[in-house]
Amino acid sequence: MAQFINSKENIVTEAVDGVVAASGGRLARLDGYPHIRVVVRNDWDKSKVALVSGGGSGHEPAHAGFVGPGMLTAAVCGDVFASPSVDAVLAGILAVTGPSGCLLIVKNYTGDRLNFGLAAERARAFGLNVEMVVVDDDIALPDLPQARGVAGTLFVHKIAGALAEVGADLSTLAAAARKVISGLKSIGMSLDTCTVPGSPKEDRIPIGMAELGLGIHGEAGVEQVAFNGARDAVSAMVSKLSVNLENKAHIALVNNLGSATVLEMSVVLYELINSEIGDRISHVVGPASMMTSLDMKGFSISLYPADTQHIELLATPTPLNAWPGISLIQPVTSLALPDGLTPIAPLASEHEPTRQFLIDCCRVLIEAESDLNALDTKSGDGDTGSTLAGAARALIDAMERLPLADHTQLYRAIGLELSQTMGGSSGVLLAIFFAAAGDGASSGLPMRKALKAGLDRMQEIGGAQIGDRTMVDSLAPALETLDNGLSDAAAAARAGADHTATIIKARVGRASYLSAQQLEGHNDPGAEAVARLFEHLAR
Amino acid sequence: MAQFINSKENIVTEAVDGVVAASGGRLARLDGYPHIRVVVRNDWDKSKVALVSGGGSGHEPAHAGFVGPGMLTAAVCGDVFASPSVDAVLAGILAVTGPSGCLLIVKNYTGDRLNFGLAAERARAFGLNVEMVVVDDDIALPDLPQARGVAGTLFVHKIAGALAEVGADLSTLAAAARKVISGLKSIGMSLDTCTVPGSPKEDRIPIGMAELGLGIHGEAGVEQVAFNGARDAVSAMVSKLSVNLENKAHIALVNNLGSATVLEMSVVLYELINSEIGDRISHVVGPASMMTSLDMKGFSISLYPADTQHIELLATPTPLNAWPGISLIQPVTSLALPDGLTPIAPLASEHEPTRQFLIDCCRVLIEAESDLNALDTKSGDGDTGSTLAGAARALIDAMERLPLADHTQLYRAIGLELSQTMGGSSGVLLAIFFAAAGDGASSGLPMRKALKAGLDRMQEIGGAQIGDRTMVDSLAPALETLDNGLSDAAAAARAGADHTATIIKARVGRASYLSAQQLEGHNDPGAEAVARLFEHLAR
Repeated sequence: MAQFINSKENIVTEAVDGVVAASGGRLARLDGYPHIRVVVRNDWDKSKVALVSGGGSGHEPAHAGFVGPGMLTAAVCGDVFASPSVDAVLAGILAVTGPSGCLLIVKNYTGDRLNFGLAAERARAFGLNVEMVVVDDDIALPDLPQARGVAGTLFVHKIAGALAEVGADLSTLAAAARKVISGLKSIGMSLDTCTVPGSPKEDRIPIGMAELGLGIHGEAGVEQVAFNGARDAVSAMVSKLSVNLENKAHIALVNNLGSATVLEMSVVLYELINSEIGDRISHVVGPASMMTSLDMKGFSISLYPADTQHIELLATPTPLNAWPGISLIQPVTSLALPDGLTPIAPLASEHEPTRQFLIDCCRVLIEAESDLNALDTKSGDGDTGSTLAGAARALIDAMERLPLADHTQLYRAIGLELSQTMGGSSGVLLAIFFAAAGDGASSGLPMRKALKAGLDRMQEIGGAQIGDRTMVDSLAPALETLDNGLSDAAAAARAGADHTATIIKARVGRASYLSAQQLEGHNDPGAEAVARLFEHLAR
Repeated sequence: MAQFINSKENIVTEAVDGVVAASGGRLARLDGYPHIRVVVRNDWDKSKVALVSGGGSGHEPAHAGFVGPGMLTAAVCGDVFASPSVDAVLAGILAVTGPSGCLLIVKNYTGDRLNFGLAAERARAFGLNVEMVVVDDDIALPDLPQARGVAGTLFVHKIAGALAEVGADLSTLAAAARKVISGLKSIGMSLDTCTVPGSPKEDRIPIGMAELGLGIHGEAGVEQVAFNGARDAVSAMVSKLSVNLENKAHIALVNNLGSATVLEMSVVLYELINSEIGDRISHVVGPASMMTSLDMKGFSISLYPADTQHIELLATPTPLNAWPGISLIQPVTSLALPDGLTPIAPLASEHEPTRQFLIDCCRVLIEAESDLNALDTKSGDGDTGSTLAGAARALIDAMERLPLADHTQLYRAIGLELSQTMGGSSGVLLAIFFAAAGDGASSGLPMRKALKAGLDRMQEIGGAQIGDRTMVDSLAPALETLDNGLSDAAAAARAGADHTATIIKARVGRASYLSAQQLEGHNDPGAEAVARLFEHLAR
């Protein structure tokens, strides 16, 4: 799979410059390209304890996305999945550390431990006060003495960051960070491996399987399990997380590992809340992409037992969009449906001339059924005649419940009937036509203007203009001339309908996909229906 | 590709419940499952103009993720890529619309126009004041009269939402929305099609190609173009966007269509800023997933000519994490590298006994090279002897620049030499050992305690404990007994080294990947080196 990068060598420097440029001046970077790629707060005054993290790239927004007020002071960015050099880490430490010292937050990988560790030694030789904490939240391999550091690291960034922002000293920060680390548990699951820039993709996970307990650098999962949907997947993770899980409220951090969709992540969260440990999850951070593994189609769940102080620190506002905030989990509030979804049927009333007029119109459309279908075969799917005839038959059947004596209500009632019986776009458009005409009539417009108001609304919603080879081509001129009498209107409708046979490029509807040759010489069936209706009425 | 869902039928209801549950009580939904899926603000008092949007699902976080203070009042969620029903839209309108009325924000697709349009008519029949605006920002097909609505819709949500929040009336809102829409331009690019739940994936885009000007429902792009990296991709999009682009500042909204990585999106932003229209981009929204197309590996760029009022409205805070905020684009600030990266060389000094002692130690390691390599072949990659001998040779060569007469400085100097000449983890660990021992010595510790401080730090960083089959197994007991004289220390080191041959499960380092059978009977080479050193010194 190709990627939106330029070259493997420049990924990190270009991405860092993108992040810094779009930070609104909040961030800067050290002038150490290509090897030293350190993002720092541009507003830092060294009076507070500096928080420095980092590691290999490929986990964005971690860590550069978390540099800013209330979180990190600097992020040291290695190559993709490779620890930054000792010099790069040292540069980061020296750039931001003042008399209050510096806390290094390191994920538990040998390279990171060693490089951050040696950089810390070199910084100490300058008299700087440097502490280092190592995050090891991955529970995939419970017997592994050196558990990996994964997405739970975000809890450390946020809690230590909020403490540093209010002036906590280094030993307080380090103690708080260690407390968080000791309570963290994380596990990941993925349906596919990630694509490392410049390397062929490893096809390790067979279709129908998922990896449970995988690392964030493409390391294989502890086991491959059959994949049977989101519920089973979350359940398998929960069964790992629930081992020795304290019987108290926890904060869940739900992390997108790369290319699970936002839709899927919401389903995952739904399943987590409804899982067997759902009642022990009081808050959630995410779902969001926080500690990714490039484009891995997976996610991780981290749990941390909440205490009031740490919930408050997690909730402290930060301007960093990469931090999704923390939310209280609550039962879903379901509001009653509003009244009005079942339309109030108008009071039926009798008016014999109107009944006959409507039935007459309906019969015109019923008689035209096969002709209109034949025309539609030339430009559409051949069903315009049947659609209109079906609606006409349904309207005849509905005559007993129409308010025939109340003409302002009648438009809306016809619109309502059509919206319920006539399928497709044309049904909705005619329903809109009659509903808007009814609005016009009820606000006192005479018939022609009310119908024109209906046409305007139908055009606004449907988008058809004159010349677009639709029923508008005959209906619009007919209404325009209606004040001169039905004969003029019928003539105008006929001229408009016949003109559609010369329109060889349709702009809207299905006919817009056809060629000039296919369309030429055939009237648009909708326009023809309107013309026949007016011609009948004029007789 | 499998997906983290349970069934196609339940995706939207489960995802909506996930979103509502994690909203901290901010959101509710209507009780209309399974067909009516409407997310509404739970704190809405109907005194302000309601903003209702929606459409097919599959574009998350649009639209439910944008329901909240300063943005939408309700989102109506259809099935994946399918317009919601008229009843669902009407339910949404009726649930939130009060005397100030309602603005419908609709993307320009026939289904959405018709269903939102008819719902608006039905709402008007209840006397509600409803206006509808249609977003058509896609410039992929410049001659298409009905341009699609894509990610530019977010500008409308945010600007109209901020206006509604401060009490603007419906006509003001509709006018502002139409002004925004008239200035919007968007275009998308993708390297692959999206995976529609329940449908086989369409393999439409060949390897090495990208689609330019594609829709957000899997519609094919206007053209397939050769893909030559991020710079070319952005340049192709910019050449479309720059047609008739006003010569003034614009806001760029950079939208992840699904599964481009966060890393790639930063590179894309970098290229956009550095493109030929870069100087006309004053602000950016994103990069972020705002209007996705399920898991499409692509992105879109939307441009809107900034005016001060609209920039302020875009910058108005909202608690919605799905809205990434707006940032001023600024040149990258590059700070000078801190002093101290080039370590200050200690002042060389002569002290013949120390020189002889060090050279002596180095020779022990050089002589042991092949023995230690042979041992390492059993448990590692066979190079421990060469690594140590190489470092020893380099240290002999460095003798002229060492502070031989200043023992407190000497530790640090040796650490520095080792960090520069000795590769691999062991080089870093020994550098940490000597650096920390130097710290101890310079703070006044006697030799044994200084070395012990070095060991402690090395263990802290490296993670090795006694019994882990490392050099710690001989070094720790040697230092423990050093006060009793070198003979005791040598005996303790030997006993520790020999004991490693019985440790059949290594916890750290490369040996941890080997079986008991492979390890049994062979001393750890690092432990053996330490033992040989002490044995030599004791003679």
